[in-house]
Amino acid sequence: MKCFVTGGAGFIGSNLVDRLLSAGHQVVVFDNLSTGQEDFLDGARQVPAFALIRGDLLDSAALTKAMFGCEFVFHLAANADVRFGTAHPRKDLEQNTIATFNVLESMRSNAINRIAFSSTGSIYGEPQVFPTPENVSFPTQTSLYGASKLAGESLIQAYCEGFGFRAWIFRFVSILGERYTHGHVFDFYKQLCEHPNHLDVLGDGNQRKSYLYVQDCIDAILLALGSYNEKVNILNLGADEYCSVRDSISWITKELGITPELRFAGGQRGWIGDSPFIFLDCNRIRDSGWRPKLSIREAVLRTLQYLRSNPRVVGRGV
Amino acid sequence: MKCFVTGGAGFIGSNLVDRLLSAGHQVVVFDNLSTGQEDFLDGARQVPAFALIRGDLLDSAALTKAMFGCEFVFHLAANADVRFGTAHPRKDLEQNTIATFNVLESMRSNAINRIAFSSTGSIYGEPQVFPTPENVSFPTQTSLYGASKLAGESLIQAYCEGFGFRAWIFRFVSILGERYTHGHVFDFYKQLCEHPNHLDVLGDGNQRKSYLYVQDCIDAILLALGSYNEKVNILNLGADEYCSVRDSISWITKELGITPELRFAGGQRGWIGDSPFIFLDCNRIRDSGWRPKLSIREAVLRTLQYLRSNPRVVGRGV
Repeated sequence: MKCFVTGGAGFIGSNLVDRLLSAGHQVVVFDNLSTGQEDFLDGARQVPAFALIRGDLLDSAALTKAMFGCEFVFHLAANADVRFGTAHPRKDLEQNTIATFNVLESMRSNAINRIAFSSTGSIYGEPQVFPTPENVSFPTQTSLYGASKLAGESLIQAYCEGFGFRAWIFRFVSILGERYTHGHVFDFYKQLCEHPNHLDVLGDGNQRKSYLYVQDCIDAILLALGSYNEKVNILNLGADEYCSVRDSISWITKELGITPELRFAGGQRGWIGDSPFIFLDCNRIRDSGWRPKLSIREAVLRTLQYLRSNPRVVGRGV
Repeated sequence: MKCFVTGGAGFIGSNLVDRLLSAGHQVVVFDNLSTGQEDFLDGARQVPAFALIRGDLLDSAALTKAMFGCEFVFHLAANADVRFGTAHPRKDLEQNTIATFNVLESMRSNAINRIAFSSTGSIYGEPQVFPTPENVSFPTQTSLYGASKLAGESLIQAYCEGFGFRAWIFRFVSILGERYTHGHVFDFYKQLCEHPNHLDVLGDGNQRKSYLYVQDCIDAILLALGSYNEKVNILNLGADEYCSVRDSISWITKELGITPELRFAGGQRGWIGDSPFIFLDCNRIRDSGWRPKLSIREAVLRTLQYLRSNPRVVGRGV
């Protein structure tokens, strides 16, 4: 199968690309390299079935041309930065909502009708039910990121009904693992490299979140494509556990062998629109037989190990 | 209060403008007159507290300038044509989603933080629960119109959380009454003017929908602004009844004194993305004491009376 992967130079995207190539698929990556990193594709480049096209999803003409001849779209490109939405609201609109519209229109132009989409547990806002199932009560959005991703999901769903598309929509928790370039493990490790004696922590450290290891995430995506075949397939992807920020700090500092002073900013939320508790009900994907191979603790430590082995990633930051 | 009304030259908008002026408010209408009609504002123009600015919501600079000095935004402008979404998907994205983003950004620029928004029962897709409450299970979108309106709702909600906005989001059923310029009563009456002996009907005529008379709708909006004061106030607006397309046809043809042959296109849905049953649970707005004054039958007949008295509206069409 010839696959088109938007955001294929990014953290999750590049890991997916490697897996698709290993499985014998052809892969075209479309990425503007704004947060994606070309060297994440060093391995992929060795495979003749791989092509990288540097382009922006807001450039519809380039996108439509690049997609020619593909059969399946993995739409992973996004502004994934939930934290800074209020600093630049237009970014989420453009890079998540309008970009998704452009992907869908380019698919129509190329007569491609199957899409996998990386959505987010952030679209549940601040749910009242934990673990939160896919069919929870109609939520209220609390972040521009969540709003823009829900808009993307909604567009995809309308294209399924209106244009005979078929979609696999994955609502991720935070993903961890190799090529991870932003998030709390990144922030904490970077800080501790600069000042091992103290650690600034957003909120009160009691925020509880679920996480998932990137290879477990990709296992689930690839399994779901064969296991679920409704018009619109919506699947939470996360671990069946969660941890607090304090838990994660203790694992990281113990591994690094340091005992920094913890300086909490205070408050239940790390930032405006942060959800103090994210824990998704993943029974639907588990029905396919999928199980995560790493615990959250193992995923945090694997991520830390990656960052320690790749100082260049941490130095560059995102 | 100085009110800014987008789409204020339209069906619901112009009726709202008249009511706001009657209540002693200042009103600035911003409308591109694409479907709005200037003569709907003939009465409003007589009032010194009224101003009409012809402009497009995609022109952010003009919008921001026009909004200067206003205190409350009624955002009613939209591509309200749920039926033709698949003919021009970009229209819903631009006129509903991006336009709403521009309204929100212009509000930020003008330090205005209160907004009322006309959303739609279409965002429930094809619900399984009737009457459908606001907090029903997270729906799947079935129309580009619904998707674009949900994107608008979601943006507004995120601005409430991120920028301290306060919002009243109204999920309408189909609205009927004076200045009604599109919808099934319009289509049927127009057809029957042209050929009284037969009537082409989309679907099988068994589609069931709820409707609401425009003045009842505006009563509810104005009452809700004083009765609900959460950060985000979401309210279904509809009658506590529904009718089938066949019911409506019988009321209309009896009133016109004709017995046309009914030619059904067949199928459960009138068009792609049409929901065969729309019936909203309006207990939340009823808690404020609001009750619709007209039944659906009375609203249909009132609309028919308006169209018969205004042949120019029917001739022009929309």
